[in-house]
Amino acid sequence: METVSINKSHGGVQGVYRHDSRETKCPMTFSVFTPPQAEHGPVPVLWYLSGLTCSHANVTEKGEFRAAAARRGIAIVAPDTSPRGPDVPDEADNWQFGSGAGFYLDATQEPYARNYRMGSYVTNELPELVAAHFPVDMSRQGIFGHSMGGHGALTIALKHPERFKSCSAFSPIAQPSTSGWSKPALQKYLGADEKAWRAHDATLLIADGARFKEFLVDQGSADQFLQDGLKPWLLQEACAKAGIPLTLNMREGYDHSYYFISTFMSDHIAWHAARL
Amino acid sequence: METVSINKSHGGVQGVYRHDSRETKCPMTFSVFTPPQAEHGPVPVLWYLSGLTCSHANVTEKGEFRAAAARRGIAIVAPDTSPRGPDVPDEADNWQFGSGAGFYLDATQEPYARNYRMGSYVTNELPELVAAHFPVDMSRQGIFGHSMGGHGALTIALKHPERFKSCSAFSPIAQPSTSGWSKPALQKYLGADEKAWRAHDATLLIADGARFKEFLVDQGSADQFLQDGLKPWLLQEACAKAGIPLTLNMREGYDHSYYFISTFMSDHIAWHAARL
Repeated sequence: METVSINKSHGGVQGVYRHDSRETKCPMTFSVFTPPQAEHGPVPVLWYLSGLTCSHANVTEKGEFRAAAARRGIAIVAPDTSPRGPDVPDEADNWQFGSGAGFYLDATQEPYARNYRMGSYVTNELPELVAAHFPVDMSRQGIFGHSMGGHGALTIALKHPERFKSCSAFSPIAQPSTSGWSKPALQKYLGADEKAWRAHDATLLIADGARFKEFLVDQGSADQFLQDGLKPWLLQEACAKAGIPLTLNMREGYDHSYYFISTFMSDHIAWHAARL
Repeated sequence: METVSINKSHGGVQGVYRHDSRETKCPMTFSVFTPPQAEHGPVPVLWYLSGLTCSHANVTEKGEFRAAAARRGIAIVAPDTSPRGPDVPDEADNWQFGSGAGFYLDATQEPYARNYRMGSYVTNELPELVAAHFPVDMSRQGIFGHSMGGHGALTIALKHPERFKSCSAFSPIAQPSTSGWSKPALQKYLGADEKAWRAHDATLLIADGARFKEFLVDQGSADQFLQDGLKPWLLQEACAKAGIPLTLNMREGYDHSYYFISTFMSDHIAWHAARL
């Protein structure tokens, strides 16, 4: 593991790191904020999964999470959103597929199956690496994310309810298997058989019996992707049917950007802190 | 004036705007955050001047000022750091001169005198524009900035002590007329006669009799530019001699980046709020 940069911030340390990934078979970059409390012993860790087109850098620079994470003593890890590089198959002009659009799943279709293993990367390889190199208490993990990363957080929490004590999302893609900006990606990564998609769709995972103790979701009412891409009411329906408590905050006038995320970031961190 | 973008954030509005400047004779971009209190009447306005290589975007995206500005009811304006564009003379490979390095002065030397009028731009033209278009109370203005923008804030406050109720800086260039990364720029903008530089150097302005009621400065102890470029002890000496109260906080382990600035941003905004 190579250190790309280290900056003191809000009393803790904001680092960026790079390593050669066994899962994605390319170098992967991620960021870790360790709060000042980590000097005295392991701290809880909160995984932040980013949205389409993002890398670790967007939330690290614009997320405004460090003040709250330092106050609460929580480490924040932000992985990249896909494999990248000259050897990784991609569709250069398509922001909804390939680079920046890994959808936190393991592709089964060629030519993507070799590199696009973001499911195993964020649930196995990166946690092993983080546990080995940082002062984190892996018995106290939470997960959250934005948009495609909100989808990632919800589905990963539903598949690992014993591992995560808390899960929240900003404007998640509630039902990626029907949403216009994710359906073509699921098709290319997982094949035409829609049965294989169900394990990567929060609403269908819940319909198929997966459970998590509770969710917090914030969603901007002026989000340009609300009606066609995100559809939080589908998550609301699925949670209501399954008896999963969901707090869905519709935020008047907010859009899909980090100006929205940063506004409610400290609320989410406080919510996770109370559960970690 | 053209609106480039508008995003709701922290209860207020973060806007980015563009206009054709009479001073710099090119299009200029700037950002304005208006806090929620502006819906009920004019609010105080705090000018943030950025450092070398920056535009309005750096502090707007990474400065973490909106939570504090919304809480205190203060508008934040972030101008660009220089004229830009194909018709503006520049040294493309020099990050310490030309584009991104206007030093908040009016150049007198050719070929720079026509466009490099950032002094008049930030003290006359932009304030007129902001006063005309935004709900700000121009009798309650403060000014702050970072590095080259800290130099700008200090010198502008010293030259307009009646206009600004408060002035602070993050890691300012205390004595640009002797500092390695600013001396060549002053030479090219203002000519070889060092007498002309004194009006753009906080320490020499103070030596020549300029006064301001008090300054707040935060400086990282691990700042790579501390010893050769910034030298806050020269400001400390000048203020001590002149009887100007200066609070200089040396921050252990912090560097020159926005990871440092964002850490102490809310302290600075609270400090200004108490004086506006």
